[in-house]
Amino acid sequence: MGTGGVGQAYASRFITIGYEVMMGTRNVSEKLAGVERDGYGNPPFSEWYLANRNVKLGTFEEAAKFGEIILNATLGIKSISALKSAGEKNLSGKILIDVSNPLDFSKGMPPSLLPELSNTNSLGEEIQRTFPDVQVVKTLNTMWNGLMVNPAMLNDGDHTAFICGNDTEAKAAVKEILKSFGWPEQNILDLGNISSARGTEMYLPLWLRIFAATGNGAFNIKITSLK
Amino acid sequence: MGTGGVGQAYASRFITIGYEVMMGTRNVSEKLAGVERDGYGNPPFSEWYLANRNVKLGTFEEAAKFGEIILNATLGIKSISALKSAGEKNLSGKILIDVSNPLDFSKGMPPSLLPELSNTNSLGEEIQRTFPDVQVVKTLNTMWNGLMVNPAMLNDGDHTAFICGNDTEAKAAVKEILKSFGWPEQNILDLGNISSARGTEMYLPLWLRIFAATGNGAFNIKITSLK
Repeated sequence: MGTGGVGQAYASRFITIGYEVMMGTRNVSEKLAGVERDGYGNPPFSEWYLANRNVKLGTFEEAAKFGEIILNATLGIKSISALKSAGEKNLSGKILIDVSNPLDFSKGMPPSLLPELSNTNSLGEEIQRTFPDVQVVKTLNTMWNGLMVNPAMLNDGDHTAFICGNDTEAKAAVKEILKSFGWPEQNILDLGNISSARGTEMYLPLWLRIFAATGNGAFNIKITSLK
Repeated sequence: MGTGGVGQAYASRFITIGYEVMMGTRNVSEKLAGVERDGYGNPPFSEWYLANRNVKLGTFEEAAKFGEIILNATLGIKSISALKSAGEKNLSGKILIDVSNPLDFSKGMPPSLLPELSNTNSLGEEIQRTFPDVQVVKTLNTMWNGLMVNPAMLNDGDHTAFICGNDTEAKAAVKEILKSFGWPEQNILDLGNISSARGTEMYLPLWLRIFAATGNGAFNIKITSLK
């Protein structure tokens, strides 16, 4: 779900490691007709799509029907609406990997978080609450998308990924996907149930400040503990 | 300002490296008469105070008058009130190092942040706004107090401290204090003005989830970047 830079990074990476991928978008013809660069200066989706012919494109509903595993890479502010368009029955019983963040750009830069989806709630929890028959697993929302799918490019993968969700089997399956991206198992920290998404989403304001201070988004944090 | 575990850690450490210290509290005789352990199971303040005879104790007002540098180690929910008790004129023109967090224990565990002091505001900013003639420097609020004042106990100090504030000279002075605690200069990241306190305070929910998942509070994050 989602055709932006995050969705593109996942689509390419999943194809590389042998998955079939259909990306979901609200309106396929509009998406392919777009010719403008996005807010980050990336080329229009159609350019990327032409260069990635193995990736299928469909509506949110078509992609949800197609997928055995669903990945939410839509803008946080639009995620619930996009997933409703996908259709509850097309998501039910499936794992939904949520890598999005509820960023609120309406109050100036750097963005804050949507007040109703932070502190005592989170986007991860809101998705789980809205779709109780989906196994929501929140992960990888704490870093630049290049690192999410290719952690080895930084410090041989020796930095930290978080994972949380209510369903133990779903988390184990997603952990295997992370390992196939190159995440060392010992660097994947299970924070517990989906309410822990509050923690990983509320880290974003610090991430944005570190990015602003260093001018470099290709960083991550590593947890180091006294034994 | 503050006589809890954080205040005690700083008082001991400042004495060790050659400072004179007066701790500030709301009511000196009540504080010394207390015989109960705190919520973390620590012994009453009077026990610690008897074992640390070089530390002075006074009211918030007396401590603010005494100090050339002020450190706020009160509970975030009480910080503004404590600093008002200290008296604006006793704080004006001084550096105030703020290591506190606006934790809200009223909505269950783990704590959330006070809604009015998070996301589009922060405790660091609120203190600066309330006392415009004070140089507020937010730092070290992202870790267990033992590590704040003795970073070398973990990984030879090779983990990250953040610093932010509006006054460049005040930040430079506080950076020297951090270095005297043992922080390597290259591990102290200046995030910019005091609004960056939003980032470091909003990291606390993630800190609390990592603590809960690992059962070990003696950890910190290290930023690792692709060059």
